[in-house]
Amino acid sequence: MAEVKALFFDIFGTVVDWRGGIAREAKKLLKPLGYKLDWIAFAQAWRDEYQPAMEEVRAGRIPFSKLDALHRRNLDRIRPKFGLEKLNEDACGKLNTAWHRLDAWPDAIKGLKRLRKRFLLAPVSNGNVSLMANLARHNGFHWDAILGAEIAGDYKSKPVVYRAACAAFDLPPQACMMVAAHSYDLKAAAACGLRTAHVARPDEAGPGTGEKRPAIKVDVAAKDFVDLARKLKT
Amino acid sequence: MAEVKALFFDIFGTVVDWRGGIAREAKKLLKPLGYKLDWIAFAQAWRDEYQPAMEEVRAGRIPFSKLDALHRRNLDRIRPKFGLEKLNEDACGKLNTAWHRLDAWPDAIKGLKRLRKRFLLAPVSNGNVSLMANLARHNGFHWDAILGAEIAGDYKSKPVVYRAACAAFDLPPQACMMVAAHSYDLKAAAACGLRTAHVARPDEAGPGTGEKRPAIKVDVAAKDFVDLARKLKT
Repeated sequence: MAEVKALFFDIFGTVVDWRGGIAREAKKLLKPLGYKLDWIAFAQAWRDEYQPAMEEVRAGRIPFSKLDALHRRNLDRIRPKFGLEKLNEDACGKLNTAWHRLDAWPDAIKGLKRLRKRFLLAPVSNGNVSLMANLARHNGFHWDAILGAEIAGDYKSKPVVYRAACAAFDLPPQACMMVAAHSYDLKAAAACGLRTAHVARPDEAGPGTGEKRPAIKVDVAAKDFVDLARKLKT
Repeated sequence: MAEVKALFFDIFGTVVDWRGGIAREAKKLLKPLGYKLDWIAFAQAWRDEYQPAMEEVRAGRIPFSKLDALHRRNLDRIRPKFGLEKLNEDACGKLNTAWHRLDAWPDAIKGLKRLRKRFLLAPVSNGNVSLMANLARHNGFHWDAILGAEIAGDYKSKPVVYRAACAAFDLPPQACMMVAAHSYDLKAAAACGLRTAHVARPDEAGPGTGEKRPAIKVDVAAKDFVDLARKLKT
């Protein structure tokens, strides 16, 4: 690992808990308005629209739009299922920024602090720059730069996203390591020549739903961010 | 100023001292190789090629290239004037990254720390992402994101650079304030609707060479970054 200079992070699911965070933020905003939802089911339904929306961009059927715009479109799509048809524009806008206020998994903040001593750190997420900047403020992350989909103009797992991140840091892919809880992300990064680290999030979308271990060969498999910091000698 | 949410910073000359830093780094690298130069004159000559090189991009005569590439081309252009024709590729590459190791003006670090309590902070510089990330590591800056020329694909003072920065933070221009020691930069930002803050760097390129005060009307005129922090109530 001597030559790894930068670590790139998947964010949703890997660093932050989208499920618990969206459920909490939705409840905080909608309950005072008189709504009673299955908050977790709402979070899951919103997230279920995530990959199909990005696929529209990846396939070139719609031009690149930042994730906030896709989240908003996805919200409109699921509103009828949850009786939210009459939610006004202002409330929809506030609800859409719930993604900017997600909490990190407990180990992530501690691990990132240690990793920063030795590596350049950047999110290489599908989230837009403002979303990443706000999550960093909310959780106290210190990134060296915000890279990822908005910089690349396309969504993971398209190769351009990983390549644009390496290029922004002037590093060859083998000097960069993608860190994610999802094997499909790591597989795509590895295909571009990046090193890979898997962090287990077995309960990402509820108990037993996440990857306990990588489904592919990776350079490092860690049980959480503190374990990753230890395995990367920081 | 209640509605300002983000501060954008010019870097070279405003936050860091390019003249002293380039002179020092050049001496550190070239003196052991037997070179005796007027180090300050060398720094000035290199910087003198800065605007003409970016103008090639701004005018569309060459495609966008990150500032490191322009700096390298500019270095090759001035080498004969300083007897550096035989400097090898490795040394030229190292010398070119001298721009990544410039020191902040003494007040900048303290002022930025205070400003961060209230505002989102980002460099909106002509320097590329890696250059900004390395300067941040070198000086301990904590940016919320690295915006500027590389993100926009063009150089200041083209409007797209200021507009791309506002868009990355999802903010209207009037919620963003450009901070610079150079009136031409502030004038261009103001034309895009941004608020403006001038920081005096009267000795930027040697005693009495810089702007003691703004040449245009600005929202805030500060004598340094600590004064700026005070004037912005942080």
